[in-house]
Amino acid sequence: MVRITVLYPNEAGKTFDYDYYVNKHMKLVRDRLGSAIVRTEVDKGVAGGAPGAPAPYVALGHVYCNSIADFQKGMGQHGKEIMGDIPNYTNIQPQIQISEVIG
Amino acid sequence: MVRITVLYPNEAGKTFDYDYYVNKHMKLVRDRLGSAIVRTEVDKGVAGGAPGAPAPYVALGHVYCNSIADFQKGMGQHGKEIMGDIPNYTNIQPQIQISEVIG
Repeated sequence: MVRITVLYPNEAGKTFDYDYYVNKHMKLVRDRLGSAIVRTEVDKGVAGGAPGAPAPYVALGHVYCNSIADFQKGMGQHGKEIMGDIPNYTNIQPQIQISEVIG
Repeated sequence: MVRITVLYPNEAGKTFDYDYYVNKHMKLVRDRLGSAIVRTEVDKGVAGGAPGAPAPYVALGHVYCNSIADFQKGMGQHGKEIMGDIPNYTNIQPQIQISEVIG
């Protein structure tokens, strides 16, 4: 199993529309990538590890796929539309991490 | 549901023992925090988002709990032992993110 994690750093002056992200953007991702996706999850940052510390990320999006090839094929076809939707919910430049789920 | 994500940045000259992390450290976390934990997952970084880009993180650990209070109670009792185990698998200083799973 592969997880694509999209991380939105917590930076001053940035905005993030959680409702749009959960109900519109992630739905778009699932609709367009179809059977390449096993499931998606969305995290809303609450806190950091130290007492009183802010969350390093305002949000993380997780996309579980059976293979990197499946994900990349879907993004090759629909990546422009999916990436183009980002300004509709945030002005944060996300980090992208592709991982193998090993445990 | 709450997710505690522990992120290990991909930095030059650092080491990470995936076998120890999956089979010893995460087992320790589950054993000590007991019923506070719903499940754990471990990601091994493979790549970044851009073609040829390295993974921003060598590993991410995910600990799903029913509540932040349950997690903090367990860490209050066992945090010293759990954090003290980190040098047994890495010399990376992890970031910690506490999130609410909203989607």
